[in-house]
Amino acid sequence: MDSNFIQKLIKPADTKIVLLTIDGLGGLPRKQDNKTELEAANTPYLDSLATKGICGLQQPVFPGITPGSGPGHLALFGYDPVKYQVGRGVLSALGINFDLKSNDVAARGNFCTIDSNGQVTDRRAGRIPTEKNIELCKLLQNIDLPETEFFIETVKEYRFLLVLRGEGLFGNLIDTDPQMIGKKPLQPKGLSPETEKTVKLVTNFVNQAREILKDQHPANMILLRGFSKKPNWPLIKDVFGINCAAIAAYPMYLGLARLIGMEILKTGQEIKDEFDTLKNHWEKFDFFYIHAKKTDSAGEDGDFNQKVARIEEVDQQIPKLLDLNPDVIIVTGDHSTPSLLKYHSWHPVPVIIYSKYCRPDNVDKFGERSCISGGLGPCFPAKDLMPLALANAGRLEKFGA
Amino acid sequence: MDSNFIQKLIKPADTKIVLLTIDGLGGLPRKQDNKTELEAANTPYLDSLATKGICGLQQPVFPGITPGSGPGHLALFGYDPVKYQVGRGVLSALGINFDLKSNDVAARGNFCTIDSNGQVTDRRAGRIPTEKNIELCKLLQNIDLPETEFFIETVKEYRFLLVLRGEGLFGNLIDTDPQMIGKKPLQPKGLSPETEKTVKLVTNFVNQAREILKDQHPANMILLRGFSKKPNWPLIKDVFGINCAAIAAYPMYLGLARLIGMEILKTGQEIKDEFDTLKNHWEKFDFFYIHAKKTDSAGEDGDFNQKVARIEEVDQQIPKLLDLNPDVIIVTGDHSTPSLLKYHSWHPVPVIIYSKYCRPDNVDKFGERSCISGGLGPCFPAKDLMPLALANAGRLEKFGA
Repeated sequence: MDSNFIQKLIKPADTKIVLLTIDGLGGLPRKQDNKTELEAANTPYLDSLATKGICGLQQPVFPGITPGSGPGHLALFGYDPVKYQVGRGVLSALGINFDLKSNDVAARGNFCTIDSNGQVTDRRAGRIPTEKNIELCKLLQNIDLPETEFFIETVKEYRFLLVLRGEGLFGNLIDTDPQMIGKKPLQPKGLSPETEKTVKLVTNFVNQAREILKDQHPANMILLRGFSKKPNWPLIKDVFGINCAAIAAYPMYLGLARLIGMEILKTGQEIKDEFDTLKNHWEKFDFFYIHAKKTDSAGEDGDFNQKVARIEEVDQQIPKLLDLNPDVIIVTGDHSTPSLLKYHSWHPVPVIIYSKYCRPDNVDKFGERSCISGGLGPCFPAKDLMPLALANAGRLEKFGA
Repeated sequence: MDSNFIQKLIKPADTKIVLLTIDGLGGLPRKQDNKTELEAANTPYLDSLATKGICGLQQPVFPGITPGSGPGHLALFGYDPVKYQVGRGVLSALGINFDLKSNDVAARGNFCTIDSNGQVTDRRAGRIPTEKNIELCKLLQNIDLPETEFFIETVKEYRFLLVLRGEGLFGNLIDTDPQMIGKKPLQPKGLSPETEKTVKLVTNFVNQAREILKDQHPANMILLRGFSKKPNWPLIKDVFGINCAAIAAYPMYLGLARLIGMEILKTGQEIKDEFDTLKNHWEKFDFFYIHAKKTDSAGEDGDFNQKVARIEEVDQQIPKLLDLNPDVIIVTGDHSTPSLLKYHSWHPVPVIIYSKYCRPDNVDKFGERSCISGGLGPCFPAKDLMPLALANAGRLEKFGA
């Protein structure tokens, strides 16, 4: 589906759409009872929504592709994640409201732990507290790069942002993060000859950082990934004709939402805060994106029970959502994060679309296996959820005579 | 699926395919028993065909896209409806066998009712009888346009055809039909500078029509839509290697069929007439398109029971079809028209493909929910039905060595 095609069909309507993204929602069954996290969770409200709505499993990118949070979310926002690619560096910058210039190169940094051989033993340095991060960032300010301005900004816990500002910088570098423990951080390397200057600067930066952090504990090194420049994309308002608001506790998701022109609503750290924020701004927008993060974190920690509890926590908020009487509700995740894998995965993600005009199927339980037989089928392209939501909201004209 | 790809694989065979299009077939459940029109209908013959065939739901264009009758049918004929777009004006012209020249601009007209403020109160003027239409068209013949020939032709009920013939005319104008009651007809407007002359002519025409019709009742104004020129498309015979005949009571569908080179068979107004026509021409063609219109009209009128009755009426004709022993039967609709919405909708459409060589699934009832679990799945692209029918008819070579 080409978004230009949709653009010609949009028509105004006085209807509201809510996209509830339960991060890393999809899972895999545990041994004891062969149930996934979502199947094991007690979710009466989501089950009721599944009964009234149309269900399925959505494919964020393609079969077999494990999406990062960026592509996973872009697809849900109706942007083809293969066409619209953005580096994690840029997302991090936007998420902390860093004023990225068009020639800046941004990278996401992790404070990590390396052993005496220089091999990574913890990619997140035991998820150090944000206060420690701030302290370490101050130390890194002492790095000296020739003819180049740079910015080191704390994001959260073990994550920071690096921005290089200067002439002739390029973002097409590989990550220094080896993505595994037991390996050394990778040498900075460019993917085209034009990156030579950028690679030299990054190498210089990383070497100085290693020196500066070597006696720190547990965070004694940095990993960089997602080198990138700010893209220039069409705004969601223009593509789909909707005024959108984003409600999320974590910076990166807000950054992504801002990049396509969503307004960011200030909210708290808990999922209930987000639903309160939704209620307080209900009149002002056509479309709300609400993001529940902790399901994904639990999955990444391999904590099955915690993920179940986090799903149940979201379920308990559904009545608040229904009280607002939205015209269309989409419930899904940006990707799967099975506790069994402790990582994002390629598995498709359960989805419900509910509206007065959806055509219900026979699914009466929100779960991976129950959704297979849903009306959206087991491989619904995630990027087509937005047009379908717009149709259900009476926001698309008929195509052709 | 690219039709050029198929073209290279076609081989002759002495087999016959019937495409039965039940217009607006798909529906939405009513409250009382949660059944759609098709689910509520008593359709023993279609159910039997569903049992022996392979079923599913087909997507005429894309998820969320509500197709007009043109795109909905083109997809069933195996033409990508996004690539092959035609205006309603051209379709109307072809449907009444109007000899459209390559530089003509055609528009479909509605006689409508406006109030004293000029606002539309009925877009179809209470569906005036065809006789009244003929009378009004005669009045409009008195319009005087400088240096331009024009034709006003009655189509049916409230619908007429306007054709402008002259030098330098273009079809890319917006509709004057506001598509809603309570609004004034829109001013003629072009979508590019080259349309200036055409816009002036149309404005002049509409103003004179308003004057001429002002004291008529209930049709006292006109709405124009689908300004277009005749396209130049590949013929179905060349693309798919089949001699096709079209059997339909309504002009627009015949126009569309003629545009891609189907032969039009004269038939009556009732569905049983169409099946008689099929029988009478059985030997002469490879492929028959039969169109049942009244299901869609009932849906557009919001008459659930009438739509049920019209579906049952079609069902009763199936034995006649089976008596002819076709090699392949496709039963589906060009789009959904739920009585609940009184309009075309985006919901996918139930479909059966039956042949001696299809691989049956477990579906034993022809309905929206039963077809979800059919072998074609819940989102089968409509334009891929034709290649599948050809394969079942032994009309496609193996691809590759």
